[in-house]
Amino acid sequence: MRELFSKVNAVDLAEFISEMDPEDERLVILFRLMPKEFGAEVFAYLDRDAQQRVVQGISDKELRGIMDELFLDDTVDFIEEMPASIVRRVIKLADHETRKQINQLLMYPDDSAGSLMTTEYMEAKTGWSIAQAIASVRSQCEDMEFISTLFVTDGARHLKGSVLLKDLLAASDSDSVASIVNTNINFVSTLTDQAEVADMFKRYDLVTLPVVDGEQRLVGIISIDDIVDVIDEEATEDIYKMAAMEPIEQSYSDAGVFTLARKRIVWLAVLMISSTVTGFIIERFQAALAANVLLVSFIPMLMDTGGNASSQTSASVIRALVLKEVAFRDIFKVIWKEFRVSVIVGAGIAALNFLRVMLFNRNLLVALVVSATLFIVIVVSKIVGCVLPMFAQRIHLDPALMASPMITTIVDAVALLVYFGIASQVFGIAV
Amino acid sequence: MRELFSKVNAVDLAEFISEMDPEDERLVILFRLMPKEFGAEVFAYLDRDAQQRVVQGISDKELRGIMDELFLDDTVDFIEEMPASIVRRVIKLADHETRKQINQLLMYPDDSAGSLMTTEYMEAKTGWSIAQAIASVRSQCEDMEFISTLFVTDGARHLKGSVLLKDLLAASDSDSVASIVNTNINFVSTLTDQAEVADMFKRYDLVTLPVVDGEQRLVGIISIDDIVDVIDEEATEDIYKMAAMEPIEQSYSDAGVFTLARKRIVWLAVLMISSTVTGFIIERFQAALAANVLLVSFIPMLMDTGGNASSQTSASVIRALVLKEVAFRDIFKVIWKEFRVSVIVGAGIAALNFLRVMLFNRNLLVALVVSATLFIVIVVSKIVGCVLPMFAQRIHLDPALMASPMITTIVDAVALLVYFGIASQVFGIAV
Repeated sequence: MRELFSKVNAVDLAEFISEMDPEDERLVILFRLMPKEFGAEVFAYLDRDAQQRVVQGISDKELRGIMDELFLDDTVDFIEEMPASIVRRVIKLADHETRKQINQLLMYPDDSAGSLMTTEYMEAKTGWSIAQAIASVRSQCEDMEFISTLFVTDGARHLKGSVLLKDLLAASDSDSVASIVNTNINFVSTLTDQAEVADMFKRYDLVTLPVVDGEQRLVGIISIDDIVDVIDEEATEDIYKMAAMEPIEQSYSDAGVFTLARKRIVWLAVLMISSTVTGFIIERFQAALAANVLLVSFIPMLMDTGGNASSQTSASVIRALVLKEVAFRDIFKVIWKEFRVSVIVGAGIAALNFLRVMLFNRNLLVALVVSATLFIVIVVSKIVGCVLPMFAQRIHLDPALMASPMITTIVDAVALLVYFGIASQVFGIAV
Repeated sequence: MRELFSKVNAVDLAEFISEMDPEDERLVILFRLMPKEFGAEVFAYLDRDAQQRVVQGISDKELRGIMDELFLDDTVDFIEEMPASIVRRVIKLADHETRKQINQLLMYPDDSAGSLMTTEYMEAKTGWSIAQAIASVRSQCEDMEFISTLFVTDGARHLKGSVLLKDLLAASDSDSVASIVNTNINFVSTLTDQAEVADMFKRYDLVTLPVVDGEQRLVGIISIDDIVDVIDEEATEDIYKMAAMEPIEQSYSDAGVFTLARKRIVWLAVLMISSTVTGFIIERFQAALAANVLLVSFIPMLMDTGGNASSQTSASVIRALVLKEVAFRDIFKVIWKEFRVSVIVGAGIAALNFLRVMLFNRNLLVALVVSATLFIVIVVSKIVGCVLPMFAQRIHLDPALMASPMITTIVDAVALLVYFGIASQVFGIAV
């Protein structure tokens, strides 16, 4: 049996089990057959329903066995998903020290460094020799998820620096920890936002980052494999905001229908109401439209193209702001760049449109009016699409969230005003 | 001086130097003052212009010093950015073995596992004892960027498994490497796409991943800190595609005006041409519109809301597909979920619109027609917004790229047809 389990990957097996019918009795039986350590690994990757089913099907002794093998951060993730009855049973079974750590970790706000960190890390004391430190590593390291760095603290547990495991191993036994400690290190507090933590990992190419409390005492570490998920989460949040939705906390498949509806309806309502403006503009030019109904048929195309042109620019600029490739101080550089891009793109699209209108409608005046409008709309859309997100960032609003509805409304209104303005001049229609 | 440099972070200093005027002579002087190892670290983080300036300002001996300290993957990244004259000088200065490795790494296609990997990793042989392995680690590890795992190979360099450094350190000296080797490991080939590599890191919570050639011989490793950049790159690509742009290879600030224009104009042209369809529909209903011009004023709002509703859904579903939260086999589950969401959202928005039209236009029939259209448009938009990306994925097209223009065109056409259909029934207008 051990032989068999050594051939499969815990993640793949967990996925297989998670897809089984939760009522299937073989689920718990299969789980009982696994070697203890492997079982805990599989358990950590199970989905919520399967975890609950396993916990309900096994004895207290078996549950304690799994808890002993689970990494502390996985235990906390699991507890956060479980109903109260199971949480009580798990907490009751945990030993005193683990219980204290679990309760501590459960207290940190979502998306804070405290909620990301684990309290399992390797520590060295300022006074130790290399031999002492290596001996300590060798005795502790088997229980650690991830080792690459030891954190050095003084007697009061204040963070003093770090020692890379590779430097420790390369040093000679008679040296002291103090001789290879790196005192110029990055750290965060338990309340630092996870997006900021992820940015530090990226900026400084970190592998682990120590977390300190209000008194600069080391309380945990965050390792890069937890940051990978944060980076995906942050990108998902930005994508949701750019598509005019509030982000959801869980995955799409876990999110309920009412949650999804709630996250979507707000912006949809705001955008619908703000399009009252375009309605007013059209009503104001009713006479002109009634006199030349052909003009109406280009309204959707002009508004769509303006919307697409501005969202191209705002998506590029918002992403560049998030990745810290540009900042507010670059605003004139960005405007000048987008202006030149928009002139090229606008001229190309306007020329193409001219050919199209001549081909389908054979009306030179209309072709000229629509193409001129298109050119102006594309230039204005691209400028609005870069300026608004940058100003939003400047006044500490989320560029992704703030920009989209305002940009749409402004671009739609500009498109119509320019169109009707040019059209009424050219066709001499009273408005 | 060393004291001073030990207080600043290499990344921060590199940023400061990169922002200096490249003609400023103090740039090279500052660089010469740095301790060798620190200088190499700073060098790796400099931007292209500053790197070029430094290389032009220092002697061959100094350059060789930097090359000796640089990690091989950083050297390759640097060479890829430099003009031919500097590349020749660097290659000439490298020793035979390094030169061979650089040339090898430069050959792998962009975005392949080969181009991500480094050839600096720790190896153990199948027949070794623990003591031998630890001694080997201690002698090699200082030159490594990242150690957490040793890769075990046989005499012909075929990959046989891996040993976690923590297991090695925890084992007793008299054991053999064979007793703690993990033979069930993940690996990729040099030609595996970087998106697939990133997915493996995420799925299996990996820290390093070995890369093998066509004959299963170990040729390098990829470590998780290189994957962090890949994840950001892939998210940026998806954001660009969703905003109807082709992705750019460099960062926004490095991309030239013509590159940006080229990446944007294609989809803008496709979308503009495809909106010919909406123009035709409007022309076909000209008579109805001329008879009731008030109807025209709601066209932009209906199309915008349809577009927003569909992009909310397509953004959610595309992201869920990318993160592997849903797959094609879930299509009926997704449609059923989106249908229920759309009924809730559609009913809410339609009711709000009804109130708005009654308030501003005081026309019951128009309010009913517009609200009914709005409800249907939102439901259809959300279904189209989830079905198309999933089918695109099924037939191995990129959901992000394929979905957007087709969805817009379909949703726009449906909005107009439903609107005019209902309006002509209610108002009894001949079409």
